[in-house]
Parts: sequence; C-alpha cells; structure tokens
Amino acid sequence: MNTIAEVISPEKLLSHWQGHRNLTRRVIEAFPEKDFFEFSIGGMRTFSALTSEILAMGAPAMKGIVEKQETPFQEDSEHLTTKAAYLEKWDKATEQINYYWNQLKVEDFQETFNLFGYYNFPVIENILYLIDNEIHHRGQGYVYLRALGIEPPHFWER
Amino acid sequence: MNTIAEVISPEKLLSHWQGHRNLTRRVIEAFPEKDFFEFSIGGMRTFSALTSEILAMGAPAMKGIVEKQETPFQEDSEHLTTKAAYLEKWDKATEQINYYWNQLKVEDFQETFNLFGYYNFPVIENILYLIDNEIHHRGQGYVYLRALGIEPPHFWER
Repeated sequence: MNTIAEVISPEKLLSHWQGHRNLTRRVIEAFPEKDFFEFSIGGMRTFSALTSEILAMGAPAMKGIVEKQETPFQEDSEHLTTKAAYLEKWDKATEQINYYWNQLKVEDFQETFNLFGYYNFPVIENILYLIDNEIHHRGQGYVYLRALGIEPPHFWER
Repeated sequence: MNTIAEVISPEKLLSHWQGHRNLTRRVIEAFPEKDFFEFSIGGMRTFSALTSEILAMGAPAMKGIVEKQETPFQEDSEHLTTKAAYLEKWDKATEQINYYWNQLKVEDFQETFNLFGYYNFPVIENILYLIDNEIHHRGQGYVYLRALGIEPPHFWER
C-alpha cells in the first residue's frame, strides 16, 4: 500500500469528524436548557431537533455501513427531554462512531452503499455528507446563540 | 501508485468542494439585493460580508498553497457593492480554484504549509478548513433567508 496516493487517511478523517463533533457538543452546552428545546428563527427547527437529526445520522449510519444493513433513517427513536440526556447520547455516539469506524478497511470507503436504504453513494460520500450536514446545522445553532446574546465557541477550536 | 490507499482522490475532493461552492452561489442568488448587504441577526455579519470572507479564503488560499507564498489574509481587497459583482467574482474564483488545484500533486496534500503566514498545517487540513468554513457560514445564510421568509435551496443539491 502506497501512502502517497492518500489525500487523507481514515484515521485523520475520523479525527477531523470527531473534532467537529466535539465543537457541536460545546454548542449544545452553550444553549440555555429552555432555549435548546424552544428557541428558533424563521420557523426553523429548534437546536434540540437539529441535534436529534445529527444523532440519528452519525452513529446509526456508521453501524449501517459496517454491518451492511439498510435500516431506514429513524429520528427520535427515544424522546430526550433534557440537555444532559442529549449530551449523554452524544458521548455514547462518539464511542459508537469510533467502534464502527475502526472496522472499516481503507478500500471500503470506495464501495457503494445504500445508506438508510435511500442514499446510494460511495461510503466516502455518505460520510462526508454526515460531516457536512453537522457543520451546516451547527452553523445555524451559532445564529440562534448570537440571537440569544450568547457567544458561541470559536469555530476553529476542536 | 496504489489507489486502494485513498479515502478520497484529489479530483473527487475538488468536485466535492465545487459542489458546495455551487450551492453557496445559489444561496447568494436567493438573497434580495438589499438584504444581502444589510440583513443580519444578533449583531452578526451580513451575508455579503460572510461571502467576502469566503472569497478571500478559497482562491487566494489555493494560489498561496501552490505558489508557496505566505501572503497574509486580506479581505475586501476590492469593495463590491452589488450581488452581480459578487457572483462575477465567485465565478472567477471557481476557475482559479480549478486552475491551482490541478497543479497540486497528490503528495502535496500532506506537506505542511503556513497558509496566509498564519495557519501552519498540512495542506489537506487547510483545504478542509476552507470547505468547512464555507459550509458553516452558508448555514448561517440559511437562517437569514428563513428569517426573511425565503426558502433556501436544498442542502443536498450541489
């Protein structure tokens, strides 16, 4: 195996994602309890609802990819009502993502997989989508925090 | 060169970025002219100011990386006052990014480069930062559009 062909290694891409996940965790923490569940702008979802989506994607997607199970996307399989419960689920997902990621071989990233029985793309594209979607929604959380007069964590601190 | 070692190829990462850039372009287009320059939430920058930052990063960063010039980050080197002028600069940047990208060899992505004389990281990390920063700020633009009662383009359409 010639490492010259790599633009990014599996290990570094995982660390890149987990760095983003660590930042998202701090954005969740920055919300006042009530606003996490109630505040929104322009009819958009609350940050707890956006977090539910992110949680329904990350670890379940990695499990599906590794176990080749096209289990449909399912949000809010459990109804969480406190920030603490979200953070606990977040930390479990961190472990699950690491666990499944470490079972992926480098060649698996190019395999086409029908994620959630719906997104039929190479695994690398599905994984980039998970990361990008989290950055996208977290950026929206930054606006919510600013609108609430709260300084969000620095984007570059992971 | 063994392609098995790749998680993502340079060509696919460029296409991934340009797909995101195409979406950001449509977000710029979705703003009413006045709101692009004036609307903001919670004391944040307008979407024109965020776009200026994105433009000051993408193509200039690629030029710096390829020419190994640690030119400092410089925003608003020209003062644009219409959406049309932003879109024109956007399209020029699209060409410039392609031009410089195609001069990068696959092994260059692992080289450490002090981008803008300030961000001393492997080229791949600097490039992921450019992409992530654009997704982050565009996500904020989505909230601005929703607050203005405008439906943003679908996130998954690139």
